[in-house]
Amino acid sequence: MSPPADPERPNADATTTVAELRKLVADFVDERDWSQFHSPKNVSMALAIEAAELMEHFQWLTTDASRRLVDEPEKLAAIGEEIADVVGNSFALANELGIDLSSAIRAKMVKNAVKYPADQYRGRYGPEDDEFAS
Amino acid sequence: MSPPADPERPNADATTTVAELRKLVADFVDERDWSQFHSPKNVSMALAIEAAELMEHFQWLTTDASRRLVDEPEKLAAIGEEIADVVGNSFALANELGIDLSSAIRAKMVKNAVKYPADQYRGRYGPEDDEFAS
Amino acid sequence: MSPPADPERPNADATTTVAELRKLVADFVDERDWSQFHSPKNVSMALAIEAAELMEHFQWLTTDASRRLVDEPEKLAAIGEEIADVVGNSFALANELGIDLSSAIRAKMVKNAVKYPADQYRGRYGPEDDEFAS
Amino acid sequence: MSPPADPERPNADATTTVAELRKLVADFVDERDWSQFHSPKNVSMALAIEAAELMEHFQWLTTDASRRLVDEPEKLAAIGEEIADVVGNSFALANELGIDLSSAIRAKMVKNAVKYPADQYRGRYGPEDDEFAS
Repeated sequence: MSPPADPERPNADATTTVAELRKLVADFVDERDWSQFHSPKNVSMALAIEAAELMEHFQWLTTDASRRLVDEPEKLAAIGEEIADVVGNSFALANELGIDLSSAIRAKMVKNAVKYPADQYRGRYGPEDDEFAS
Repeated sequence: MSPPADPERPNADATTTVAELRKLVADFVDERDWSQFHSPKNVSMALAIEAAELMEHFQWLTTDASRRLVDEPEKLAAIGEEIADVVGNSFALANELGIDLSSAIRAKMVKNAVKYPADQYRGRYGPEDDEFAS
Repeated sequence: MSPPADPERPNADATTTVAELRKLVADFVDERDWSQFHSPKNVSMALAIEAAELMEHFQWLTTDASRRLVDEPEKLAAIGEEIADVVGNSFALANELGIDLSSAIRAKMVKNAVKYPADQYRGRYGPEDDEFAS
Repeated sequence: MSPPADPERPNADATTTVAELRKLVADFVDERDWSQFHSPKNVSMALAIEAAELMEHFQWLTTDASRRLVDEPEKLAAIGEEIADVVGNSFALANELGIDLSSAIRAKMVKNAVKYPADQYRGRYGPEDDEFAS
């Protein structure tokens, strides 16, 4: 599903560069002199913890019910905060390690496309039979 | 630490919008008709799993040793792939739920700034004494 | 659902104490002189990583399909190995910190029973309406 | 490090079988009719979330500092609750899937011993050079 084109909804993603958001995170860390705590090891832990907090919102739902959250603005706002934490920590880690994310993501998507050729994996999430999937 | 200004290193982040990367992920999912598997619940699990794979690179290192990975290009490349997977899954989730990430991140950073005032948290990661931290 | 009473299936759990399994893990660590790597921080990371590997088996399944794995001996064996890793790392962490697990679990179950009174939470996983649950 | 022999400390692990603790968890679930939510998929998510909450206690500490928590009774009690949650959820998952944990753990430890021969891995956590480790 593509990002929303709904004119009522904000779409800052269309005009915001990754570097702008990374700088936002870098400044926050600098202003608090938190780089001393932000070893890559520690930030990777923070990131995994935030990913778990995000998952908590979907924990007891069926897969179908989790799709219906698009119509629950309040829950969506809470989920948006958790995704922001996950991506924010990803940016913090990339900042500490000096990794260019756009290059890394493009390269990984090329690798994924080789691993999962579209014609072989259309409608199938893995090489084995998918009777269980959904 | 700010993103690298080294002219030798790629800095595609400076010119790449979040929407461009989101579209890359959305197209990948569409071409494989994987939206049927990409319920928010499932993608949140995929994201947490990728966060754990990223953490694996730092598992047995001291916090100091994890900083020295900036000088290990091969390890850095492998770590970059894992961060790409984490951010890619974050984009996939935002795509499924129609969340504008740049707005969400900016709003969360404002909230974090209120929660952790720079003058109170400078050099301290939490409200309690920090004798253990590093 | 209670543990299986099927006489064909092994039921070593009925006669194995927690201390016996903890000693198995402690001896393994001692024989390799791995306590130097087994700081509580590192073991907590190893544990979270194993929990993610366990989750991988259920990632693309519906909740219903995940129940049907009880009839898939091969997948069940693979899942059993991952649960073993999670519990083994929990024992390793309890060993490093000198925590008595049976006491901790009993105390936590009492606390949970107070938090989730059986008569209020029968058939409900949370205080809010549960229209989405399954 | 072996479990504590300190007579002042409880050592219920020495006399508690795994089956006893599993039954405690099974009864808790049965009394609330929660098996309907306890699909293996959902419990695996709950387990990973608890593992992250456990990790949170060690997130900003150095590896050395995390060892010193053995002398912090209050923090130790809080950590014990989180380990109890992780192991409790592991038992809940084993209950749902009918897996004998003691057999699974013993079998996995044998497999680990083959993978990591004591004489080759003494003092080394991996096959590569370990200059970074701690």
